[in-house]
Amino acid sequence: MVIVIALAASAAVGQTKNKPGPLTIKEQGSFFVGGEDKTITQPGFGPNAPPTSGEITVNQMYVQYQIPMKGDQHVPVVMVHGCCLSSKTWETTPDGRMGWSEYFVRKDRSVYLADQVSRARSGFDPTAFSEVRQGKVPADKMPTILDATHQVAWTVFRFGPKYGEAFADEQFPMQAMGELYKQMIPDLNSTLGPAPAATWKQMSALGAKLNGAILMGHSESGFFPEQAALIDPAGIKGNISIEMPCVTNFNASQLATLAKIPTLVMFGDHLGDVTGGPANWAQSFASCNTFVEQLKKAGGDAEMMHLPAMGIKGNSHMLMQDKNSDQLADLVIAWIDKHVEKKK
Amino acid sequence: MVIVIALAASAAVGQTKNKPGPLTIKEQGSFFVGGEDKTITQPGFGPNAPPTSGEITVNQMYVQYQIPMKGDQHVPVVMVHGCCLSSKTWETTPDGRMGWSEYFVRKDRSVYLADQVSRARSGFDPTAFSEVRQGKVPADKMPTILDATHQVAWTVFRFGPKYGEAFADEQFPMQAMGELYKQMIPDLNSTLGPAPAATWKQMSALGAKLNGAILMGHSESGFFPEQAALIDPAGIKGNISIEMPCVTNFNASQLATLAKIPTLVMFGDHLGDVTGGPANWAQSFASCNTFVEQLKKAGGDAEMMHLPAMGIKGNSHMLMQDKNSDQLADLVIAWIDKHVEKKK
Repeated sequence: MVIVIALAASAAVGQTKNKPGPLTIKEQGSFFVGGEDKTITQPGFGPNAPPTSGEITVNQMYVQYQIPMKGDQHVPVVMVHGCCLSSKTWETTPDGRMGWSEYFVRKDRSVYLADQVSRARSGFDPTAFSEVRQGKVPADKMPTILDATHQVAWTVFRFGPKYGEAFADEQFPMQAMGELYKQMIPDLNSTLGPAPAATWKQMSALGAKLNGAILMGHSESGFFPEQAALIDPAGIKGNISIEMPCVTNFNASQLATLAKIPTLVMFGDHLGDVTGGPANWAQSFASCNTFVEQLKKAGGDAEMMHLPAMGIKGNSHMLMQDKNSDQLADLVIAWIDKHVEKKK
Repeated sequence: MVIVIALAASAAVGQTKNKPGPLTIKEQGSFFVGGEDKTITQPGFGPNAPPTSGEITVNQMYVQYQIPMKGDQHVPVVMVHGCCLSSKTWETTPDGRMGWSEYFVRKDRSVYLADQVSRARSGFDPTAFSEVRQGKVPADKMPTILDATHQVAWTVFRFGPKYGEAFADEQFPMQAMGELYKQMIPDLNSTLGPAPAATWKQMSALGAKLNGAILMGHSESGFFPEQAALIDPAGIKGNISIEMPCVTNFNASQLATLAKIPTLVMFGDHLGDVTGGPANWAQSFASCNTFVEQLKKAGGDAEMMHLPAMGIKGNSHMLMQDKNSDQLADLVIAWIDKHVEKKK
């Protein structure tokens, strides 16, 4: 019963335990990209206060960054989390090791962590909920709030063939599962309309603001770099797409735009070993192989990095938190050096 | 028309513009405090997926921290944001200066930024909304989502006597108002029940986990340090409460507990100069003067720091973002040194 062990041990973890030594950074901070005013009528602010009408700001994207001392020698990396998660994805791992955000900074890369529009510190537009509460809109028209259960996460994230059972070679730190569950927060992308285009737009704008950046997405946001590039590719120097379904019906003009951007697609292990859940990883993998071939035919520099094909076994969907996360980060950084920065 | 200027200029701000030089930190990362499992029935995960039943984790509190090289020479500081805001409150200011979080780190203090339970990266419990959507609960029983409008913020945060008009000596960086509006996100504390006790509990637990910390709250969370101490004072070495109503009817036992903790209460300017809005700052100030006197009578070391009484004029409710924020941080740090760390 892996799950029992996991939950019992989880109280002891969650804070960084490997001490990699001091880190000197040139600059750090946070800011927002985009955002528009919207007029609303809201419940009163404070007890017994009457409803207020006025403007709120929506669709802004919160970004937190660190620039290392040698950051200007490399292209900045923008990391965007997946469904039901926040930028916590890239920070301290569930078992208390350094996450990819600090690891990349220690490898001299400027890192920008973006909370998706409508999630975490980016906030969300509450209007559709308030309208239901006020009786203006029927309850069944309220946007769906998605919050993955532990059971759904276990199989969708490929920790094992079914809930409570881990793959023998599983790379996810199973003893710290309880800490991953705490990272899982309500997903309000349904408030953004049929597609999370607001996040795509702000990612594209962030690349431009940085005068060139590599966009990295994972899972729900895995294909956001490509969608951002189709809005405006000017600031996008490279795309890294981790574990998601790929679009395979772009037209020639769209493919020509995407083919100008070096593209890395990354998948972990056990893609066909979890069946019956809401995700079909074998199908997603096949679609991305097709997409990579389409980019190549359009003259692009595109690579499918399928970890088990390289002899790296047991990686989950949350591969940036897996026990070999440093090794995987090194693979990504080596790809950046060779394909985006064209180093020898 | 201050507002017009503010919005026109806001596109140019939002990223750190004063470069204070490199910063070396000993350790950084993020983790969660607390959290419990809850069984829910949720809409399907992914298109066409059936509803799923299972566990989610709720009431966890997300904490992000940096420990400076000399951090072990000082008591760590926990900073908790106010209503309709996130830990962004303490980071880069709207006009792009260093926020209190980094400023305190540069003054050798370990800083822990907590997103309130039910806000930002801490996530929230979506159950009450899903139940309305599923028709199990009437719409008017749905928790109220609070999102302060620009108009409400302007007067409640005391930028001026009415929306669009600034006080002549206003310390808030008015030209960057649009960036503050982006920080304002939906407040879901109504999902926590009659009081945000989950946050109080996790703050208390965080103090214990750190083997002693100073708790700092602001506005909605201004009195959370005191509430946390009443749950368990063991890990709380000092309380800093900024701009909120104070409770003045604690019993002798409660006051005895709170009187053992050095307490600083801080208020800015123009407390009586905004009338008719949902906040009554003159009344809040009066209640806190009473509370400070009650602590003193109970033998406590308590101080009311009313800035204009010290000759510091024009500070808003968002005083940690005001143009003189460094000066105010120095006052807080000096108070910590003298009253919590008992330095000469």
